[in-house]
Amino acid sequence: LRVGYPEVVFTEGKDIEHLRRILIDMLNRDANILATRMSEEVFENIKDISENMIYNKIARICIINPKDVEKVGKVAVVTGGTADIKVAEEAAITLEAFGNNVERVYDVGVAGIHRLFLNLDKIRDANCIVAVAGMEGALPSVVAGLVDVPVIAVPTSVGYGANFNGLSALLTMLNSCAAGISVVNIDNGFGAGYLASMINKGFTKNGGER
Amino acid sequence: LRVGYPEVVFTEGKDIEHLRRILIDMLNRDANILATRMSEEVFENIKDISENMIYNKIARICIINPKDVEKVGKVAVVTGGTADIKVAEEAAITLEAFGNNVERVYDVGVAGIHRLFLNLDKIRDANCIVAVAGMEGALPSVVAGLVDVPVIAVPTSVGYGANFNGLSALLTMLNSCAAGISVVNIDNGFGAGYLASMINKGFTKNGGER
Amino acid sequence: LRVGYPEVVFTEGKDIEHLRRILIDMLNRDANILATRMSEEVFENIKDISENMIYNKIARICIINPKDVEKVGKVAVVTGGTADIKVAEEAAITLEAFGNNVERVYDVGVAGIHRLFLNLDKIRDANCIVAVAGMEGALPSVVAGLVDVPVIAVPTSVGYGANFNGLSALLTMLNSCAAGISVVNIDNGFGAGYLASMINKGFTKNGGER
Amino acid sequence: LRVGYPEVVFTEGKDIEHLRRILIDMLNRDANILATRMSEEVFENIKDISENMIYNKIARICIINPKDVEKVGKVAVVTGGTADIKVAEEAAITLEAFGNNVERVYDVGVAGIHRLFLNLDKIRDANCIVAVAGMEGALPSVVAGLVDVPVIAVPTSVGYGANFNGLSALLTMLNSCAAGISVVNIDNGFGAGYLASMINKGFTKNGGER
Amino acid sequence: LRVGYPEVVFTEGKDIEHLRRILIDMLNRDANILATRMSEEVFENIKDISENMIYNKIARICIINPKDVEKVGKVAVVTGGTADIKVAEEAAITLEAFGNNVERVYDVGVAGIHRLFLNLDKIRDANCIVAVAGMEGALPSVVAGLVDVPVIAVPTSVGYGANFNGLSALLTMLNSCAAGISVVNIDNGFGAGYLASMINKGFTKNGGER
Amino acid sequence: LRVGYPEVVFTEGKDIEHLRRILIDMLNRDANILATRMSEEVFENIKDISENMIYNKIARICIINPKDVEKVGKVAVVTGGTADIKVAEEAAITLEAFGNNVERVYDVGVAGIHRLFLNLDKIRDANCIVAVAGMEGALPSVVAGLVDVPVIAVPTSVGYGANFNGLSALLTMLNSCAAGISVVNIDNGFGAGYLASMINKGFTKNGGER
Amino acid sequence: LRVGYPEVVFTEGKDIEHLRRILIDMLNRDANILATRMSEEVFENIKDISENMIYNKIARICIINPKDVEKVGKVAVVTGGTADIKVAEEAAITLEAFGNNVERVYDVGVAGIHRLFLNLDKIRDANCIVAVAGMEGALPSVVAGLVDVPVIAVPTSVGYGANFNGLSALLTMLNSCAAGISVVNIDNGFGAGYLASMINKGFTKNGGER
Amino acid sequence: LRVGYPEVVFTEGKDIEHLRRILIDMLNRDANILATRMSEEVFENIKDISENMIYNKIARICIINPKDVEKVGKVAVVTGGTADIKVAEEAAITLEAFGNNVERVYDVGVAGIHRLFLNLDKIRDANCIVAVAGMEGALPSVVAGLVDVPVIAVPTSVGYGANFNGLSALLTMLNSCAAGISVVNIDNGFGAGYLASMINKGFTKNGGER
Ligand SMILES: Nc1ncnc2c1ncn2[C@@H]1O[C@H](COP(=O)(O)O)[C@@H](O)[C@H]1O
Ligand SMILES: Nc1ncnc2c1ncn2[C@@H]1O[C@H](COP(=O)(O)O)[C@@H](O)[C@H]1O
Ligand SMILES: Nc1ncnc2c1ncn2[C@@H]1O[C@H](COP(=O)(O)O)[C@@H](O)[C@H]1O
Ligand SMILES: Nc1ncnc2c1ncn2[C@@H]1O[C@H](COP(=O)(O)O)[C@@H](O)[C@H]1O
Ligand SMILES: [Mg+2]
Ligand SMILES: [Mg+2]
Ligand SMILES: [Mg+2]
Ligand SMILES: [Mg+2]
Ligand SMILES: [Mg+2]
Ligand SMILES: [Mg+2]
Ligand SMILES: [Mg+2]
Ligand SMILES: [Mg+2]
Repeated sequence: LRVGYPEVVFTEGKDIEHLRRILIDMLNRDANILATRMSEEVFENIKDISENMIYNKIARICIINPKDVEKVGKVAVVTGGTADIKVAEEAAITLEAFGNNVERVYDVGVAGIHRLFLNLDKIRDANCIVAVAGMEGALPSVVAGLVDVPVIAVPTSVGYGANFNGLSALLTMLNSCAAGISVVNIDNGFGAGYLASMINKGFTKNGGER
Repeated sequence: LRVGYPEVVFTEGKDIEHLRRILIDMLNRDANILATRMSEEVFENIKDISENMIYNKIARICIINPKDVEKVGKVAVVTGGTADIKVAEEAAITLEAFGNNVERVYDVGVAGIHRLFLNLDKIRDANCIVAVAGMEGALPSVVAGLVDVPVIAVPTSVGYGANFNGLSALLTMLNSCAAGISVVNIDNGFGAGYLASMINKGFTKNGGER
Repeated sequence: LRVGYPEVVFTEGKDIEHLRRILIDMLNRDANILATRMSEEVFENIKDISENMIYNKIARICIINPKDVEKVGKVAVVTGGTADIKVAEEAAITLEAFGNNVERVYDVGVAGIHRLFLNLDKIRDANCIVAVAGMEGALPSVVAGLVDVPVIAVPTSVGYGANFNGLSALLTMLNSCAAGISVVNIDNGFGAGYLASMINKGFTKNGGER
Repeated sequence: LRVGYPEVVFTEGKDIEHLRRILIDMLNRDANILATRMSEEVFENIKDISENMIYNKIARICIINPKDVEKVGKVAVVTGGTADIKVAEEAAITLEAFGNNVERVYDVGVAGIHRLFLNLDKIRDANCIVAVAGMEGALPSVVAGLVDVPVIAVPTSVGYGANFNGLSALLTMLNSCAAGISVVNIDNGFGAGYLASMINKGFTKNGGER
Repeated sequence: LRVGYPEVVFTEGKDIEHLRRILIDMLNRDANILATRMSEEVFENIKDISENMIYNKIARICIINPKDVEKVGKVAVVTGGTADIKVAEEAAITLEAFGNNVERVYDVGVAGIHRLFLNLDKIRDANCIVAVAGMEGALPSVVAGLVDVPVIAVPTSVGYGANFNGLSALLTMLNSCAAGISVVNIDNGFGAGYLASMINKGFTKNGGER
Repeated sequence: LRVGYPEVVFTEGKDIEHLRRILIDMLNRDANILATRMSEEVFENIKDISENMIYNKIARICIINPKDVEKVGKVAVVTGGTADIKVAEEAAITLEAFGNNVERVYDVGVAGIHRLFLNLDKIRDANCIVAVAGMEGALPSVVAGLVDVPVIAVPTSVGYGANFNGLSALLTMLNSCAAGISVVNIDNGFGAGYLASMINKGFTKNGGER
Repeated sequence: LRVGYPEVVFTEGKDIEHLRRILIDMLNRDANILATRMSEEVFENIKDISENMIYNKIARICIINPKDVEKVGKVAVVTGGTADIKVAEEAAITLEAFGNNVERVYDVGVAGIHRLFLNLDKIRDANCIVAVAGMEGALPSVVAGLVDVPVIAVPTSVGYGANFNGLSALLTMLNSCAAGISVVNIDNGFGAGYLASMINKGFTKNGGER
Repeated sequence: LRVGYPEVVFTEGKDIEHLRRILIDMLNRDANILATRMSEEVFENIKDISENMIYNKIARICIINPKDVEKVGKVAVVTGGTADIKVAEEAAITLEAFGNNVERVYDVGVAGIHRLFLNLDKIRDANCIVAVAGMEGALPSVVAGLVDVPVIAVPTSVGYGANFNGLSALLTMLNSCAAGISVVNIDNGFGAGYLASMINKGFTKNGGER
């Protein structure tokens, strides 16, 4: 169906032997694979199955047998802090693998909001914004108040104490007073990236995959 | 900024005198107003301020001084049950007021999933889907598995017992295994409609407001 | 002990006859009284006990037998939305009754953050800021990132759905990445005002009550 | 009482020496034992107590001194994803040990609902269905809408973020709009299998036709 | 499909005009209707639509145009206290309308467990037991330890304080150490009755002996 | 103050060097010490400080420099399952160290309630009962319905899934319909033992007859 | 069994006709009745059934056909604030009806702890203390640190915001660092009084000296 | 901006290489650094970057390139137990690094409240109090009732069972009946210290940094 785009495998919780078999089957039909949530340990175990692999340790994504894909439009990926970058990179790498230009704007959270304003130009001309934040999770609200495109909010589990593993940021984002925001699961960088790709593609009408 | 589109007022919790003053000020500058969460009681109180008003009792929306707006593209609004319709109509009326064609497909929840399949054609050619469900909230997941456009999931507070006022449907939607879904606050039909309008407009590139 | 300052009575949940007796006893020793959380209904019932009363319907505070008190320093009271004003006024009236100058800056929440920046001067020279917000509760974090004085955050129960009666705003504020913030109970305008008064007095060292 | 059927031991949390003693006592009276939640480590420790043992690593069940038991009727065990299989196998192995025919239909969750429809025939003639799902947990609702036999829903702890260790799937299943569903504890494959056996046996006691 | 059995309407939350229309449509095709969660107020409003109606105020069920249905087998419905009876009756009336014999054994909760033992004979020969309890919700566990048939546990919202509207009883039942129990939503008497009917029918299809 | 009775040290979370110092100080004034929550690892580290120590691995209690203490009256300690025994032993060892006779009645939970009835005589003549249970936590309710002395309920964290680390058992016990029950923290065997000792001593001070 | 003591009826949630019947039956066998949680409205309805009734509006208890009962020993009932008095009176009236001397010490919560110290003598010679508190619920911990008898902690639902209807006080009490405390359900004055009576009776059976 | 005061780095969750780079950059501009939440393991790794470092193992703070700073005023840091000391030291070390005199008063929690009274003089002349407590978290309420300066309450995660990782102490503090209290995140010693420094500085008007 999605000709040219990667097939996605969620590796977390999969038995290592089971995972090897799935990946080899896919390679046998020459698939382009985006394997998410892959630990270094799992990567070490499966890295012999192909010579054409790129493993991104921060995003915990392994791209196997990548295809050349033209990048269109633009999605901005912003984070509140530096600890949110691993989730942001899951989104960004997913976006690039699906053929989107990505603008990364990291560490611009509300406690130092001037950094956000200094980077506003980079954000404003994107077709869609993925806003990633932990702790108090206020960044997506502020961003959505400043732009007029869809903002996909990704709460992260970054923080401690009353953040309750991301619940705090999740609730903040669901209760945003700004219009144009929607939310995905805690730490779900892939889901945000995939949805942002859909929106950016629709906005730039390239390729006609729909 | 958004020339031609309505200005939005969230009426719930606003003091009645305060609300009158806000609305009259807006009318004085000839604004087109979309007033959400308006009870019948409040409507009775303020209905003398203009002769050009439409009150929708189910959506609890009052449109004041409406402007003619061309409708473009298509957004499908689907619900799991009939009790979810009031939230769905908040989304649908918002979508229409902002210039989008709307396809309503109600009462197609997972317990009688054949009704969803009977209506699949109406849903598939939309640019975006607003999927509204209470109780177990499974509809958006099923829909997202069947289409390839953004699905905006709206959990509703419909249900009893362990639904904990919509928490159950909210969690279901956040944990969806399907890709392309994002979630707004419980009962937030307006937020879903506004975001769906952004996406549909971007996809149909009419009017060039961005 | 606190010569010249009002004695405080929390009226909510007190039996009406019991409350009358308490207030009359206090008046008999010529006390200056700040009675909080007083409904209009309760006020109607007790208003005959003194000729020297001011009832503030929005703050739900009744000041009985007020004393002249010089106002010193400055505390800014800011709100995210208009529905938060009733909690903000509980803080502001408390602050004034305890002899503090108050700067009110309302409806400057993060979804329209330019309004906050337009009012920054009024906020910056205060000795302490009371920041009141419901829904996503992000205002105190943004404010604390812009000033260098204590920010007392007051979550409100304003909102619906996943705000869970103020839990959302409460968690946001507790998890703030900005330094210099602390939090009081949901809707506790009095507690915030009382603490802000302590801080403002200490900073302005007038009156020497400590 | 239950002549011919296994005695059940829940091994998790039991001291290893205590467990050995229990199992040896049972073997001394020639019991047929179904030991659940047994880790590989525990199995290695106790495997010398009998020569007649089968250890299933996925289901984490050890059957000791098995008796021949005729299998009757049919129970279908279905899962949403592949990570749910370990819980499903706990149910399936329990069902088989208690004398029931089992039909396994795995990885047919709602995000790819066509796989469920392709397998509908296998499910429809069962006397009872055990439906196992994590994340959003919508599978049992969909299944119950398609069949007319009891559906025992088993939420799993599979997922991350807002699934809160299975709470999400649990609430989904409790709030199902479909009739004929009931729910057991998170990851409780044994409980579901035992109950399904009771139902299947009751249905088939007299010849197996429903 | 289910020839002779009632069609079910969940009336709670349905607009009164909408409900009338649904019921009249059903009557026009001579349906036998079981309308649940009907308040007295709603019954007064719709009672003119048929002359053949039975309204049960405790169960809040209205049966319209009942058909003669032979009752088979036996289901026991037990409650912990007297306040649980309204939920139990929702189950019992549903069971009878679907053609099952019902044995009611009320107010036999664990705080006075001798009453349960005095009634054990009535319970033991049932094909299925619906066990309804609020507060600490321990009854289904005790019952399941005494019988060898499926026990459907129904937590109720009866209680106060730390029962959190039925959460306490719900968790108790999900965590039962007894085998053969499954759980439905808080106060869901209908769901329990419908499932118990399925099981009793399956057990008795061939003559009634277990 | 409490001449002859042990001084109590809660060792969990204390730095090992800090703990050594505390214990040695106490020994220097010839104290009788009851050190709770002591892991085997900590015991190995500190066991050189005295020659007069008894370490109980199951209760995780270390008694140092024990004094002879006459045992009076009787407290029954009962558990639902075998996994609850470690918490029960914390209570029992505490009770004995404080001079109380203890009757242990383990593994008599509600799923096999006949075992409780077989042991009723041992329980009935106690002055106080400590009832320890995890999972559904129903045992204390049943016990309190059968006896007429104070029942101290101890929820344990034993279980999985929807027991949420003991929350389930805790809520069950707080909502008990039986009179004469009170509850301590999850896994708090020491607290229950200490309180039971107070009660038993008060009851037996004058000869032991109730 | 409990000769001379009242039989207890929990009236809340009982149908009025059902309640009348229960009470009349009890009167017919000349019972002494303690009816708890009785609203004024219910009292008005049933007050014709006996001429020998005392209704306590604050405690919401109705004593019907009271018997003379000698009062022994002493239980202290303390509260943190004045709003907790209604729960405290439920305990106190229960205690008196069961033949215990009661010392009431109200409004001595931790925010004004000197009031507690002023009243320490009254508390110290009680055999048992019922400590009632809402909001932060710290009173029982402080009291238990000052006395050496059992303290029964009763959390109340008094407060607002993050007290979550008594959850805050409940958790405080369960986590008390003081020894000798146990906890009953939120607002459960009856349960605390009944248990305190058991303890006081046991302590005084033989002359009253501790 | 804050000339002379340390720059703060939150090290937890930062990649070790990333952290080294940040710290070296800061040293290159001769910054005075306060690095919080630094484990011993991380300290070992980075300790070669400067010869001028002080690592405090209990507070988990590393001060790099410290500057001489005059200490003014006084802040009291009090704890309920000894396990709270690590959080208290995070506050105290922060306070000292920012130029405040600190009075440490540890292990004075409510279960042994006489120790608090013995130390009252040390506390009373402070400009601000940081009150740190886990488990039931009652200390800040008691302290605030005894003094007339701002009390910053720090809940800790110390405890077990129903303390739910600090939630219990957090709710206690938010619901305090005493005036003048505000709360920071669970275990947030740094945040409390930073805010206390602001207040103490304002009160002592030294340095004029505002
Ligand atoms: N990091 C992720 N978080 C959530 N969902 C994911 C993630 N990565 C992949 N997925 C989804 O999981 C599906 C693959 O699941 P599986 O078949 O279990 O490998 C993909 O189609 C995606 O929809
Ligand atoms: N039903 C609704 N639910 C959530 N947000 C809304 C709703 N209706 C309006 N809004 C938002 O509230 C804003 C207006 O708020 P206000 O200024 O308080 O009237 C609009 O710009 C919308 O973003
Ligand atoms: N709105 C309020 N919210 C929280 N606490 C309050 C409020 N108003 C007053 N208080 C506190 O309640 C105390 C008076 O309580 P009371 O003695 O019950 O009237 C005052 O000293 C304040 O500390
Ligand atoms: N206020 C109360 N809160 C909790 N339990 C109560 C209360 N009053 C009475 N009870 C209990 O309820 C039982 C009577 O319940 P019932 O048979 O429903 O009237 C008594 O034996 C008491 O154990
Ligand atoms: Mg925007
Ligand atoms: Mg899709
Ligand atoms: Mg600041
Ligand atoms: Mg079905
Ligand atoms: Mg059974
Ligand atoms: Mg009893
Ligand atoms: Mg004590
Ligand atoms: Mg104070």
